[in-house]
Amino acid sequence: MDLTTLFGLVVAWGAVLVSVILEGGHLGSLWNLPAALIVLGGTLGATIIGLPLAHAKEVPGVLLRAFVGRRVDSAEVMRVLLDFIRRARRDGILALEGEIETLDNEFLRSGLQLVIDGTSQELLQESLTTELRAMRARHSVGQNIFNTLGGFAPTLGIIGTVMGLIHMLGKLDRPEDMGHSIAAAFVATLYGVSTANLIFLPIANKLKCNSDEELFAYQLAVEGIIALQAGESPHLAAARMRAFLSPRAKQIFDSKAA
Amino acid sequence: MDLTTLFGLVVAWGAVLVSVILEGGHLGSLWNLPAALIVLGGTLGATIIGLPLAHAKEVPGVLLRAFVGRRVDSAEVMRVLLDFIRRARRDGILALEGEIETLDNEFLRSGLQLVIDGTSQELLQESLTTELRAMRARHSVGQNIFNTLGGFAPTLGIIGTVMGLIHMLGKLDRPEDMGHSIAAAFVATLYGVSTANLIFLPIANKLKCNSDEELFAYQLAVEGIIALQAGESPHLAAARMRAFLSPRAKQIFDSKAA
Amino acid sequence: MDLTTLFGLVVAWGAVLVSVILEGGHLGSLWNLPAALIVLGGTLGATIIGLPLAHAKEVPGVLLRAFVGRRVDSAEVMRVLLDFIRRARRDGILALEGEIETLDNEFLRSGLQLVIDGTSQELLQESLTTELRAMRARHSVGQNIFNTLGGFAPTLGIIGTVMGLIHMLGKLDRPEDMGHSIAAAFVATLYGVSTANLIFLPIANKLKCNSDEELFAYQLAVEGIIALQAGESPHLAAARMRAFLSPRAKQIFDSKAA
Amino acid sequence: MDLTTLFGLVVAWGAVLVSVILEGGHLGSLWNLPAALIVLGGTLGATIIGLPLAHAKEVPGVLLRAFVGRRVDSAEVMRVLLDFIRRARRDGILALEGEIETLDNEFLRSGLQLVIDGTSQELLQESLTTELRAMRARHSVGQNIFNTLGGFAPTLGIIGTVMGLIHMLGKLDRPEDMGHSIAAAFVATLYGVSTANLIFLPIANKLKCNSDEELFAYQLAVEGIIALQAGESPHLAAARMRAFLSPRAKQIFDSKAA
Amino acid sequence: MDLTTLFGLVVAWGAVLVSVILEGGHLGSLWNLPAALIVLGGTLGATIIGLPLAHAKEVPGVLLRAFVGRRVDSAEVMRVLLDFIRRARRDGILALEGEIETLDNEFLRSGLQLVIDGTSQELLQESLTTELRAMRARHSVGQNIFNTLGGFAPTLGIIGTVMGLIHMLGKLDRPEDMGHSIAAAFVATLYGVSTANLIFLPIANKLKCNSDEELFAYQLAVEGIIALQAGESPHLAAARMRAFLSPRAKQIFDSKAA
Repeated sequence: MDLTTLFGLVVAWGAVLVSVILEGGHLGSLWNLPAALIVLGGTLGATIIGLPLAHAKEVPGVLLRAFVGRRVDSAEVMRVLLDFIRRARRDGILALEGEIETLDNEFLRSGLQLVIDGTSQELLQESLTTELRAMRARHSVGQNIFNTLGGFAPTLGIIGTVMGLIHMLGKLDRPEDMGHSIAAAFVATLYGVSTANLIFLPIANKLKCNSDEELFAYQLAVEGIIALQAGESPHLAAARMRAFLSPRAKQIFDSKAA
Repeated sequence: MDLTTLFGLVVAWGAVLVSVILEGGHLGSLWNLPAALIVLGGTLGATIIGLPLAHAKEVPGVLLRAFVGRRVDSAEVMRVLLDFIRRARRDGILALEGEIETLDNEFLRSGLQLVIDGTSQELLQESLTTELRAMRARHSVGQNIFNTLGGFAPTLGIIGTVMGLIHMLGKLDRPEDMGHSIAAAFVATLYGVSTANLIFLPIANKLKCNSDEELFAYQLAVEGIIALQAGESPHLAAARMRAFLSPRAKQIFDSKAA
Repeated sequence: MDLTTLFGLVVAWGAVLVSVILEGGHLGSLWNLPAALIVLGGTLGATIIGLPLAHAKEVPGVLLRAFVGRRVDSAEVMRVLLDFIRRARRDGILALEGEIETLDNEFLRSGLQLVIDGTSQELLQESLTTELRAMRARHSVGQNIFNTLGGFAPTLGIIGTVMGLIHMLGKLDRPEDMGHSIAAAFVATLYGVSTANLIFLPIANKLKCNSDEELFAYQLAVEGIIALQAGESPHLAAARMRAFLSPRAKQIFDSKAA
Repeated sequence: MDLTTLFGLVVAWGAVLVSVILEGGHLGSLWNLPAALIVLGGTLGATIIGLPLAHAKEVPGVLLRAFVGRRVDSAEVMRVLLDFIRRARRDGILALEGEIETLDNEFLRSGLQLVIDGTSQELLQESLTTELRAMRARHSVGQNIFNTLGGFAPTLGIIGTVMGLIHMLGKLDRPEDMGHSIAAAFVATLYGVSTANLIFLPIANKLKCNSDEELFAYQLAVEGIIALQAGESPHLAAARMRAFLSPRAKQIFDSKAA
Repeated sequence: MDLTTLFGLVVAWGAVLVSVILEGGHLGSLWNLPAALIVLGGTLGATIIGLPLAHAKEVPGVLLRAFVGRRVDSAEVMRVLLDFIRRARRDGILALEGEIETLDNEFLRSGLQLVIDGTSQELLQESLTTELRAMRARHSVGQNIFNTLGGFAPTLGIIGTVMGLIHMLGKLDRPEDMGHSIAAAFVATLYGVSTANLIFLPIANKLKCNSDEELFAYQLAVEGIIALQAGESPHLAAARMRAFLSPRAKQIFDSKAA
């Protein structure tokens, strides 16, 4: 479980909150229903227009992943594959058939199933590469949604503020209300810029980060699966996969192997 | 029929509308003919300058596609191709001649016609790839038009606002009109930013989304057509095409195949 | 002759003009010599600094092409090449020698001359590819100039406006002039943003559009010239080139061929 | 030790400081705790949300490298590798085993170890390339953190300023405080823009600069290691590596070699 | 000698100057020492932070090249190489040894030296390509410095202006000074935007332009050097290099050859 997303949110919004209190302002003056409606409704609407319905359904899952962040552990993937490579050399590839059912990593399982099914090397390589490409496309859907939200929110804040100012200019005859009206108009900008920069865009960054890490780990897995099919020695396969590990992961792997 | 575009438009403009009403403004103060003229006319003109005439003619069709969104169903394309592959192995490729007339997908039909015509593998591959490249270029025309509209609209809003302010500064001797004049000037910015962000740019996003999905499906089709020509077994061809399916589409395909 | 550039300019500036009149402003208040000087002179100067002298000389030709737009007709190029391919198979490649002089397309003529000169296939392919690359570079010169003009104009408008405001702030003791001075300062922004968005950037878009179309057509020509040298059948060469045609151009070609 | 980072910081902040003093302002008016809190806390929080925890831990090391800048010396790397190549030709590759332990460059050491272990050329090439790719990814983590900080800081400055203005507009009945309140609101923008442009973004530039230089030097190292394994003559290997040296480094190398 | 850089600077700054005079402003009001200090010192400092010391030393040379612009003449390079190719076929490659000392183009000289030294074709190709890649990297250093200066200057202008406004808001009790103080604050923005757009960014454009042209010419040189080593006929080598010439350079070359 990856707590940095939650921790970052607490730091960011905590700083905003404490700053408001220190300044002697009260939070009530930052609440404005029409502003909230135009910024959130408008941003959501603009984002929905540009998406196929299917993508919208994936938002909860995507959000969960940003917060819980079940990441793929490269060193663990390498350990599992080396284990399979050793057994395949000893007992033959078909002996793995029962084992792979127990893997809870879908990519490894379907990749190894292709090997057991006797897929040719050319098709195996092509399938795994296409699979990775499709995975990158799927991951980018989530990043895309949050980047789009973060892109539209500030402009909707501006729309809300301009509309508020136009409204305010219509009642210049009551100057005692002007301060309040201008403040209310600015609240829309505040909502737009802060939701974009303290929620949507950072989450998009997080999703990209997680995706990059996962895809890098799966490139290691592709090397390992192809080595398994080719009947390479565990020593050679380890050398091939090791290059994908970060220095930290190399140490972890070496200490566990020892 | 894809209702998300319409749904998103309703959500976005509904939020704007309700927000205006909640704020106690009346919609009449947001209507300004000179502002509408300069933003829409200027944006349209700036976009037309940069386009060949032929592209302008495609706007209605492009818009229709954004709203109705006849998307290509990858699982269906795969099912059809596997069916053809099975028949071609049983009855020979020429037996497909009558069948392909019934296909309403132009890409599949012309690709399969090339196979029946006895095109060499090298030329078949090249033709299909060029066809995909040309299709991507055609799709990008529509995205390009709406991105251009969305890029010019806010700057034309600024032109309208600056012109309105200059106009207003010329009659500082009538301070009672100033509020109204400034409000009218801001309406141009409102039109520019809101048409860009709640119409043009989201539609451009939608067109890109549809195009990406369609092109990914056709890459699957290319694999299938080449497999058909090579006389590959349906089993092998299915494995080759499966990698292009999303996990969801894989499930749909498997459940129908069962 | 491509009238969309002219038509777009009329639409855009017409909308601006009518909008000014509707608003009850008079055009005289939008004229300001110092503002025009700083925006146009500054933009031109900044653009000239960044260009080799040779490029400046090409501006008139580039502009002409944006307005007149002599475009390359893909279907026509394909028809001409197929005709040559048929004759070359009947009478030999050398029989084309007299014919190619009559071609007014420089790219086709020099490409076919290479074939007649007996250039090896490897060198022919390399020459045509380098030629296309150089053409893309030449085309980008024009786009680059107008994009640079369009990039500098708004910032020079800001420079003009800030200078005008500084000037105005120096005579706060004559408040009756302030309105006029601020209006004059804003005119510079107006000039910068409107020349950029209603002239320079749209023309840059148009040049890019024309260039993309032309280069796509020449890729078709490269396929045809290589097919001619290889002595391919007209049927095969047509199939190879057809993939580069848009659906519309395919219909035109088919209807003429019939 | 690379003093330019420190020197640049002194120049930039010195200029700001002296400018404030020359203007007759006192620094106290630029200090505002709520503004500092919202800009730094918010920027930090937004950045943390988008990062895996592991990356946060690398910030001190990354910062140190930006200031101290232990750079890889291409000419020195080349000299070391040529020395090894000469010894390997004289005494055999295994004779290097003891030597490489003394190298304090991790990349060279592990690359040469692969050669001594008898790794095949194909795997050696692949390992070194993957290693470089992974190094580029690791370096980009640091650049990414500082670019993200530099991207969020100005928008958090705007959030702080808008919140300050809203607060100020709530007490328009005390006009004697207005000047102070507006000034305090602007301080947040000042903090955001100046931390971004005088700390975060320049450091990101520096990290990118260092990384580019290092990776270019390691490409030279890859050439040398592969030449060593292939048993190439020192003369040939030197020619191969020389192309990677800058003209300056070539002179340094030649003068030392002489 | 390339006078366009100087000419452009005169046009741009002349337009600014004349515009100020026409507006009836006096230049003295545009001079402000603290503003100059913060914009220039801050911009310089921010740029220095992000650069290795070595790069700073190259600024004078880079600037000189932007103004004097010793460009490589493609037609001349081609003429020289064809001359060497003819002599090499008549007298043997070694006969060139004395000649190449007289070449003042370093790239041609070291490339031809490699041929005379009997470098294998594979290593020659690799060396020249790496050399070009390194040259592109070196050229980009200069562009990078000026782009960075041009990127930081406007934001430092904003920092100066915001600081000036904060300073001004502290003395609202002396309203007679306000106009002067606001004007002084705006001068910083003026300095930032004008140095960026009328000096730094145009020079960066110029450097990029020169670099592109030079690298394109050297690609022609690579073709020629390889043709020389392969002992190709001057006719064939000319055809190979001709494709790199612009239509203008082709005419120049043909008219001199005739």
